[in-house]
Amino acid sequence: MKVFAEKELRAYVENVFVAMGCPETAARLAADVLISADLRGIDSHGVARLIGYVRLWKKGRINTNPNIRVVHETPGTAVVDGDSGLGLVVAPEAMEIAMEKAANVGTGWVAIRNSNHFGIAGYHAMMGLDRDMIGWAFTNASPLVAPTFGKERMLGTNPIAVSIPAGQEPPFVADMATTTAANGKLEILQRKGEEAPLGWIQDKSGQPATDPHALKEGGALLPLGGDREHGSHKGYALGAVVDILSAVLSGANYGPWAPPFVSFLPLADNPVGAGLGHFVGAMRIDAFRPAAEFKTHMDQWIQRFRETQPVSDSQPVLIPGDPEREAEKIRRESGIPIVDPVVNDLREVAGEFGLEIPDSSE
Amino acid sequence: MKVFAEKELRAYVENVFVAMGCPETAARLAADVLISADLRGIDSHGVARLIGYVRLWKKGRINTNPNIRVVHETPGTAVVDGDSGLGLVVAPEAMEIAMEKAANVGTGWVAIRNSNHFGIAGYHAMMGLDRDMIGWAFTNASPLVAPTFGKERMLGTNPIAVSIPAGQEPPFVADMATTTAANGKLEILQRKGEEAPLGWIQDKSGQPATDPHALKEGGALLPLGGDREHGSHKGYALGAVVDILSAVLSGANYGPWAPPFVSFLPLADNPVGAGLGHFVGAMRIDAFRPAAEFKTHMDQWIQRFRETQPVSDSQPVLIPGDPEREAEKIRRESGIPIVDPVVNDLREVAGEFGLEIPDSSE
Repeated sequence: MKVFAEKELRAYVENVFVAMGCPETAARLAADVLISADLRGIDSHGVARLIGYVRLWKKGRINTNPNIRVVHETPGTAVVDGDSGLGLVVAPEAMEIAMEKAANVGTGWVAIRNSNHFGIAGYHAMMGLDRDMIGWAFTNASPLVAPTFGKERMLGTNPIAVSIPAGQEPPFVADMATTTAANGKLEILQRKGEEAPLGWIQDKSGQPATDPHALKEGGALLPLGGDREHGSHKGYALGAVVDILSAVLSGANYGPWAPPFVSFLPLADNPVGAGLGHFVGAMRIDAFRPAAEFKTHMDQWIQRFRETQPVSDSQPVLIPGDPEREAEKIRRESGIPIVDPVVNDLREVAGEFGLEIPDSSE
Repeated sequence: MKVFAEKELRAYVENVFVAMGCPETAARLAADVLISADLRGIDSHGVARLIGYVRLWKKGRINTNPNIRVVHETPGTAVVDGDSGLGLVVAPEAMEIAMEKAANVGTGWVAIRNSNHFGIAGYHAMMGLDRDMIGWAFTNASPLVAPTFGKERMLGTNPIAVSIPAGQEPPFVADMATTTAANGKLEILQRKGEEAPLGWIQDKSGQPATDPHALKEGGALLPLGGDREHGSHKGYALGAVVDILSAVLSGANYGPWAPPFVSFLPLADNPVGAGLGHFVGAMRIDAFRPAAEFKTHMDQWIQRFRETQPVSDSQPVLIPGDPEREAEKIRRESGIPIVDPVVNDLREVAGEFGLEIPDSSE
């Protein structure tokens, strides 16, 4: 484990994207999305992914100088073609379009095709906060999840992010995979040699599994709920809705056709659309009620939920977004801790581009 | 258990609403929403609720001749005040407004305050199907659910319904409480004297419970996920988003202030808004891509998911909406089975209005 200062790590990531051929502003934006994940404690979606983007680019699956364009629109909607660009860059651009439309007609919704992995969904949803808008972001992803009653991997961890402004209180930010547990948590268990709780994964025959390696051995992640008795059909339906909005509505690859993030897996040889898909949206608060009034009530909502009688005095009820904001506060000050295998990846990437990774502390 | 023919049960329910003072068209619509639940096999939200509406009306909490009006709007959004009307009538009217706006600018979103229980969320979402629109419906509800780490009931079972048109295939219709299990399932276990699976409820001290009576004894339903380790913070966040869209955005009562469905519980003495809240939306498919093209891909999506390798050959993977459509097919033909306690309720209601319940078979 090494600890990197935010500023230097950010500059390094930016330099890598520039070396890949991204224009300066795109590189800065892509680095911001990744560093934002690390700051918020979502380590699986931060610089740990950098080498993955580099490998996809080397395979020719990422266009670092894309012509991102609107291919269809109405006053309140658009479809954006990402031209195989980094999702890290395509999604924020699409969210700008959604917010523009929300400014005009109340809400704006943009479906995106021909994109790649877009980092943490929460980043894109949170873009609405400064403009007093509720932000939404969805994406489909590499198929790893079996639907209820199935043993085949048909869906990605397909996250839903919703960001809601408040007044004096910090914003409400939900950013969740539609599975019981995200893949990153399994990787942690694998490293520690610990078992996974029942309800996270199944093995390749579709039986409940606790071995965190079961996923790699042909098993699957389970939809939120874990099994039918505990509502996994709801997690499956949520993941399916995310897939349909992101990919069927936009013209991207859906379900098992979604392109894998890891470059060593082949693309489907019978694609049903273009690249990966996302879906982002913005709702202007004052398209419903005056923003100040809404925020006063959001503050009251948040305060009342914080005051929920807790089961244990040592663990109060949290508001979605609390843990990530807490992590960000600490890491902005004390730096971003990176586990050794990721440090090695960063070093490998640096070597490829004749760069050096920043100094770090133990 | 008695079995009623759809047509006669519908006419009876309509007569009850007329007797309560609803105009003819409103009574027909309200009956349609309730009967639709019974047809679709969602017995907890059909005529079983009729006596509840009658009791609320007798307490003066339901206005059967409301002035439902738009109090704020933009080209793509509106806020509707339901004037204490039946949610069964207010929500479809709001959905019409949402679809009108979607026709004009691509999508339409309507937040509703000052309403009452609106029946099954799926009914309102499915209104978009005939117009090639994706339909959305959300509502908050009587507080029964404890947030993760909490022992207090802060949220309703706050459902999310999404309805997506297909071509040759039947539509994709997800309609789910954001809890592990709906209250209706607990009631079935209570009647049978069976235990609930862990992860559905907790007792009044916040400990996991299997006694289905624990809810009535001060316990709470659990958010989808069941406990923190299995992602209940995600179910909690989803229920919270539904609450905020339905009630904070509209100006209704949110969280623990949401008015109870049962008339014997008092209203909060410090309301934070007006009545119960809903949120409905419509997205025109061809605001994103030609509807025919979309539907062809939806058909392919559905067919591919149906073909998922099953864990067991006896239980294929389902598409959201399959079980309800199957129930509807059977019940339209063979009638609607109603358990004896509900038959007694229907008889009690009939007595109050000088009506008679329809003939039934055993």
